[in-house]
Amino acid sequence: MNGAESLVRTLIAGGVDVCFANPGTSEMHFVAALDKVEGMRCVLGLFEGVVTGAADGYYRMAGKPAATLLHLGPGLGNGLANLHNARKAHSGILNIVGEHATHHMKYDAPLTADIEGIARPMSDWVKTSPSAQAVAADGALAIAAARTPPGQIATLILPADTAWNPGTGIAPALPVPVRKSVDADAVKKAARALAAGDAAILMGDVALRADALESAGRVSAKTNCRLLAEYNYGRMERGAGRVRAERIPYAVDQALATLKGLKRIVLVGAKIPVSFFAYPNKPSLQAPEDCEFITLAGLGDDQAGALRALAEELGAAQTPPLHVATLDAPALPTGKFTLDALGTLLGAMLPENAIVIDEAVSSGRGFARFTANVQPHDWVPNSGGSIGFALPVATGAAIACPERKVIALEGDGSGMYTLQALWTMARENLDVTVLIFANRAYNILRGELAGVGAGTPGVRATNMLTLDRPDLDWLSLAKGHGVEAGRAQNLDELAMQFKRALARKGPYLIEVAM
Amino acid sequence: MNGAESLVRTLIAGGVDVCFANPGTSEMHFVAALDKVEGMRCVLGLFEGVVTGAADGYYRMAGKPAATLLHLGPGLGNGLANLHNARKAHSGILNIVGEHATHHMKYDAPLTADIEGIARPMSDWVKTSPSAQAVAADGALAIAAARTPPGQIATLILPADTAWNPGTGIAPALPVPVRKSVDADAVKKAARALAAGDAAILMGDVALRADALESAGRVSAKTNCRLLAEYNYGRMERGAGRVRAERIPYAVDQALATLKGLKRIVLVGAKIPVSFFAYPNKPSLQAPEDCEFITLAGLGDDQAGALRALAEELGAAQTPPLHVATLDAPALPTGKFTLDALGTLLGAMLPENAIVIDEAVSSGRGFARFTANVQPHDWVPNSGGSIGFALPVATGAAIACPERKVIALEGDGSGMYTLQALWTMARENLDVTVLIFANRAYNILRGELAGVGAGTPGVRATNMLTLDRPDLDWLSLAKGHGVEAGRAQNLDELAMQFKRALARKGPYLIEVAM
Repeated sequence: MNGAESLVRTLIAGGVDVCFANPGTSEMHFVAALDKVEGMRCVLGLFEGVVTGAADGYYRMAGKPAATLLHLGPGLGNGLANLHNARKAHSGILNIVGEHATHHMKYDAPLTADIEGIARPMSDWVKTSPSAQAVAADGALAIAAARTPPGQIATLILPADTAWNPGTGIAPALPVPVRKSVDADAVKKAARALAAGDAAILMGDVALRADALESAGRVSAKTNCRLLAEYNYGRMERGAGRVRAERIPYAVDQALATLKGLKRIVLVGAKIPVSFFAYPNKPSLQAPEDCEFITLAGLGDDQAGALRALAEELGAAQTPPLHVATLDAPALPTGKFTLDALGTLLGAMLPENAIVIDEAVSSGRGFARFTANVQPHDWVPNSGGSIGFALPVATGAAIACPERKVIALEGDGSGMYTLQALWTMARENLDVTVLIFANRAYNILRGELAGVGAGTPGVRATNMLTLDRPDLDWLSLAKGHGVEAGRAQNLDELAMQFKRALARKGPYLIEVAM
Repeated sequence: MNGAESLVRTLIAGGVDVCFANPGTSEMHFVAALDKVEGMRCVLGLFEGVVTGAADGYYRMAGKPAATLLHLGPGLGNGLANLHNARKAHSGILNIVGEHATHHMKYDAPLTADIEGIARPMSDWVKTSPSAQAVAADGALAIAAARTPPGQIATLILPADTAWNPGTGIAPALPVPVRKSVDADAVKKAARALAAGDAAILMGDVALRADALESAGRVSAKTNCRLLAEYNYGRMERGAGRVRAERIPYAVDQALATLKGLKRIVLVGAKIPVSFFAYPNKPSLQAPEDCEFITLAGLGDDQAGALRALAEELGAAQTPPLHVATLDAPALPTGKFTLDALGTLLGAMLPENAIVIDEAVSSGRGFARFTANVQPHDWVPNSGGSIGFALPVATGAAIACPERKVIALEGDGSGMYTLQALWTMARENLDVTVLIFANRAYNILRGELAGVGAGTPGVRATNMLTLDRPDLDWLSLAKGHGVEAGRAQNLDELAMQFKRALARKGPYLIEVAM
């Protein structure tokens, strides 16, 4: 078998059996190998940001890496923004990037670029495979790197001749480090801190899954500590029956208010909270100056186990958890759109076990409280802040969880970066409902402009913040990509459209014309 | 004035008065400065690949750099692919990339990334400005870098506080190196090589402008040398009255045949010809092994002057040039689509002084011969091979040359990477006619798959090469972006649609349904 086939077989043997792809000439042997090898699901994206974002969504929901297949330096470049988001969410991804044949690189052909240089800022592991004989073994290394907790971005560069020359057989899967148990001292220290009062547990990463949250709820019941979630977490299991953690808000003043009075914060898979952006005369650090931070579990640690051990240390292993969300969905609102009413409608209609991909930006800031007491679901926000996140990530989440409804909450501005994901949703008939909050502006930037002290925008500045003249027509954009769509101009129309979308198994887009 | 305003004023003083922008929070002071300062045209793109591609198109036609405004590392990442194309075309661009405030960088906020690392692979000059006092002077350095022949990619990273803190005044424009005159020895050596027979002049960069080509035509009349153009040149002035240079074909076998028998090749703004990709058992170098290369003028040299000096050296300064194209446009074809007929129709209808942006990929390979003897026009191909080129570059070319008709020849596969450019065309009412050659496939890859010896694609491989199920509906995609469009299913409908497009002043898209 050639190098490409040895790599595809090695991926499958290593549990990587989904590949999001946008291939070119240098990846043709990899593509050809798909027909020779059973077991790899290959999903085409029409833009590389769709491909990398889908791999991120897949990891967040499946808990294991997918591969991406990208075409040389520029193809990888197009995928960087969503690799950035994936990395900030600690998603494991195995990028396979085609390169010129080894003997061709020195000639500086048109598509020649420094692929390793492009990969490095967004990768934890980078290697150019030197030969077809090395490709399978390098693939096994890349799989192990991608799976290393908490999840890493591994980029394997594949010169064309390493794909077409004779390869080895399958390289066996390498051992992957498991999440480390935290030591008893760290648990004791955290327990003391929480027992001292004015304390919180701040969680991120896998500490926001239901089992870990339950332990945190027991600890809270015992110590009365607060339960907080990072602003830019990767995925939270929430809704009725689950312990609630309060997400630190985006806005600096609100974040400062949330953390006010805290003297001790125990970190579990989370970092010290910092502002998303800096603003003149506002602090970067959001906790009070005299607040002490105690790390219970880092990103590579067994975060659920650490919280369980903490509950045990405090004698709370059997204590009923505090902050358990009850089922108390809001009533369906009617009438005109307001941001609160949109959140209420979402809460009223969100189906059980839904996966919500949240890039509603300024429109969705307040949605959390209206969806706190609804059926259990997963919430997946944009962890890295690079917009163009929701449609690709929804694509990957739907591939990972075909039995669950995926709801993508998307701004019109952010949706435009990677709208090509709609086509992949149509081709794969993915069960995604897309809500486009169409306010015809980069609305967040109006607030940011004032926030950084740049005053009130005049005509020319306003032109850079608005998406009007012409308005984007999302019904046509969806139709162009083969996705059925409807428009809602008030809450009643939205309820009807949403009901229609939820009743089907497949993609549907709703333009929420605000 | 603050740092942002000092930078905007410095740009204008340095002749950079167009800015293609996709801003975010960290760029708000730059955006606000647009209202305080007269003279900067700021054009919004809804995706960064549109922004950088537009700057490339602007440089190719205006011959001077535009600025781009991009949002942190991921925004720059999204722009890399078209920066790659720009760099391979030797276009000068001044990227301004927002960054977190200097005091905020160390906190690893969600959008933090290694911006310099992302910039370097696609930039000739990179600097992070350290303070508001330094921003104007750094801007002047960046302008000089971008303008340095043959044109460079300069990336200036602008931490938010360097924009909002008090800046200096305008930094005066710095001297820019001029293209160097080639020395007499190089001219004599080239003259001897051409006089010896079996010789060609291979041209790229600005050697493909009409004046330089005219000198080459005189040399050819005297020495009977052949006139060749690089495959991946940046812009060629061609059509009736201009000296023709034969473009080296994309396909390796055709390129080898084109260069067969040549013993001496004189390079003017061109590199030794290499294959676009490597293929098993095909050479990377396309010229005969015994062919000698003589560099007359490099990229930073005065290429037109070198060709003029060469003509003088050969006593051909007044010799009527050979290979002058006559006006002999083809007749309008009718009936069904064939690739030759599409080329013929283009030749028959191309308006005088048109700017053709060519990313027709497999559909357009043969168009050159049908457009050789038509009214004078410019031909602008994809120099770097990163697809998603034509729509953004057409946008920038139309901003640079508002009096000229821009024709974008675009594949359906390549068009999908940066289709957001259509919205900018609509908003700015740019005079661009877009032809989408919709064959519902990455058709080039069918040939490439065979070319690299990967055999005949089976079902799964074919799925990665086709854009069907669902078909893209370009009429809806255009409408969604606010651009009027029509569909043509045969040559007669295409002629009617093309006529309609040419008669207006503004964007129009034609889906050529193949």
